[in-house]
Amino acid sequence: MVMTGAAILARIEALAAITAGPGVTRIFLTPEQKRATALVLGWMREAGMAAHEDAIGNVVGRYEGTRPGVPALVLGSHLDTVRNAGKFDGILGVVTGIACVQALHDAGERLPCPIEVIGFADEEGVRFPATLLGSHAVAGRFHPEVLDQADDAGVTLAQALVAHGLDPARVGTAGRSPEEFGAYLELHIEQGPVLEARGLPVGCVTSIAGATRMRVELTGVSGHSGTVPMGQRHDALAGAAECVIAIERRCGAEPNLVGTVGRIEALPGAVNVIPGGAVFSIDVRAPEDGQRARAVTDVVAEIEAIAARRELGVTVRRFHDAPAAPCAPRLRAVIRAAIAAEGLEVFELPSGAGHDGMAIAELADIGMIFVRCLGGISHNPAESVTEQDAETGARVLLETMRRYAAGEGA
Amino acid sequence: MVMTGAAILARIEALAAITAGPGVTRIFLTPEQKRATALVLGWMREAGMAAHEDAIGNVVGRYEGTRPGVPALVLGSHLDTVRNAGKFDGILGVVTGIACVQALHDAGERLPCPIEVIGFADEEGVRFPATLLGSHAVAGRFHPEVLDQADDAGVTLAQALVAHGLDPARVGTAGRSPEEFGAYLELHIEQGPVLEARGLPVGCVTSIAGATRMRVELTGVSGHSGTVPMGQRHDALAGAAECVIAIERRCGAEPNLVGTVGRIEALPGAVNVIPGGAVFSIDVRAPEDGQRARAVTDVVAEIEAIAARRELGVTVRRFHDAPAAPCAPRLRAVIRAAIAAEGLEVFELPSGAGHDGMAIAELADIGMIFVRCLGGISHNPAESVTEQDAETGARVLLETMRRYAAGEGA
Repeated sequence: MVMTGAAILARIEALAAITAGPGVTRIFLTPEQKRATALVLGWMREAGMAAHEDAIGNVVGRYEGTRPGVPALVLGSHLDTVRNAGKFDGILGVVTGIACVQALHDAGERLPCPIEVIGFADEEGVRFPATLLGSHAVAGRFHPEVLDQADDAGVTLAQALVAHGLDPARVGTAGRSPEEFGAYLELHIEQGPVLEARGLPVGCVTSIAGATRMRVELTGVSGHSGTVPMGQRHDALAGAAECVIAIERRCGAEPNLVGTVGRIEALPGAVNVIPGGAVFSIDVRAPEDGQRARAVTDVVAEIEAIAARRELGVTVRRFHDAPAAPCAPRLRAVIRAAIAAEGLEVFELPSGAGHDGMAIAELADIGMIFVRCLGGISHNPAESVTEQDAETGARVLLETMRRYAAGEGA
Repeated sequence: MVMTGAAILARIEALAAITAGPGVTRIFLTPEQKRATALVLGWMREAGMAAHEDAIGNVVGRYEGTRPGVPALVLGSHLDTVRNAGKFDGILGVVTGIACVQALHDAGERLPCPIEVIGFADEEGVRFPATLLGSHAVAGRFHPEVLDQADDAGVTLAQALVAHGLDPARVGTAGRSPEEFGAYLELHIEQGPVLEARGLPVGCVTSIAGATRMRVELTGVSGHSGTVPMGQRHDALAGAAECVIAIERRCGAEPNLVGTVGRIEALPGAVNVIPGGAVFSIDVRAPEDGQRARAVTDVVAEIEAIAARRELGVTVRRFHDAPAAPCAPRLRAVIRAAIAAEGLEVFELPSGAGHDGMAIAELADIGMIFVRCLGGISHNPAESVTEQDAETGARVLLETMRRYAAGEGA
């Protein structure tokens, strides 16, 4: 019997109490991480796991299986947070992973394969100019040049590791080999409103969306808001507004594709001046890279057509491109079977947000279980998951582990 | 014979040299104003005028006419500038006004009515939170509570007047009566591109446009740019973009009407966050108040309809409303005749920018002559008027004065 939702939430609260600021603020390589690590190591050992902190600060626990030489089923998510965060993002996956092992341990049960639970030390990338530092290190993709990058206080990653009692020269030893990992499962809050809108506690993730981010700059002619007739204007903001609508329309025309303009600025930005410039951001995501590439091509073409028609200068700079990380069909099948076995409606959805699984996909097939969260709210102290949904998530995770270990999805 | 364009531009340059910073920066009640006042008083006296600085710092010159008790024909514009301004905005009207009187004086000629030339000390309102302080004082509309308002350095208007050698208690004495002013003529650079586009050196102004300024705030639901499907979004910026297009379309549908969104902000304003809020400004101007009122009503209704359809909250705050100041038909007729008499095509256009004439309209009928400026550029060191156009403007102004004094437009 898996831990109750109440017990899971009690652990969530215990971790949430370890914070450096308002909401939950637990940043990579800080005293708060040290305290969280100690707490999680204790829970892992209580669940019968051999547990340690690895060379970059990830917490790693291992519960041996019955068959020797079998690669591990790895459960993971992250223990760090953004500033003023909620209690569940990342944390729920680590706590439910340990709860599942605890259930096996309580029943004196071992699965054929070993189970590992990893609490990654950095997913959010709040402190240094890189994200997924914990899972990239495990995937053997840690780039030593990041050691010289500094946080806002001027402390380099190398210095922060030393201050934390870790050896920058040994970070590479956190890397694991594909032979060690049979599969990776991540349970995570949805951070979106889809499951809630469908009245479902859990869903099976199809793919972690790839993302393209662009910065668009339109150049027109600024002028006095009173003296230039509408027909003689080259208003860069009016052009940008047309682009915003075009992006919304193009990305709204297909399921799973999303496109967002999150930042916009009119230049010079005065009430009585026609904007001679406009700058805005675009974030396009899709679970399938071809779908994203087609959308980006169309969006850029539309922007260029709008600029041409309005006689505006235009530059589009692509500053971020991350490929999608599809969940393995074999693992999706196991997760779907586990959801059905719990008597729940099986529903699949993409993940628009990035997760540690993107990094671990370098080592092993990945699968993800989403748990419903209130209003889709995340990265906010208002983040909320019910006891019942937390327990349901843990039950589906445990059922998925049993089925995987029994050879389903092999 | 009126002063040559070269002579007019030499005086423009002499005034431009009196600046407190880059471009031309000559702010109300500063040492630069004092130096400009001395220069202009000298030019006025050279042109045969009795000249003085009035109680708020305006420079006032008077050239008597032949008939006693006849109200004056007043020529005016302003001597102050915005920061980093051009050389012509305001100044050209004062310099050409003096040049016209100089022409009469050189010819030993007096018109039936007296001519006054006023160089207003504050039109731009750069220093204190009020504009048109010079012309409002002349119109008898100076509000004593403005004396207690402070500039960015904490100096009140009262203190600045004292430092300038003026008596705050006597500002009211700058006020003139309607009986003293028969009509007011202002020559000014267009500050827009219309004359240039038509290949005309001068134009007759129909009306100084009224303006309505609004601040619109849309409230949606912010969310993760990856996790909220397009169909479940309430993106405040996408709504704002639709409003920008609607404003452009509505205000572009009628001649003379203009509508501008000069400022916009998405909140919280991050690349990967769906904007939960959007704030933007609207500036609507029209030479006829009914036209402006209808446009504002339609624009607000469109914004409310867009917000309702997208399920966004909306507040529209109107923070500025200035009525139009129509130019008197009788003075427009005289100006048109003067333009035609110079062998030029007669063309009329509204003024979208505000001018001292808006204040003086309280005292007398107003008429305005616009002079072409390069690219419509103003409030910028690149502001430019050719020698030939400056001379043409002065000739049209002198011809208008002669015709008015001869009883045309009476």
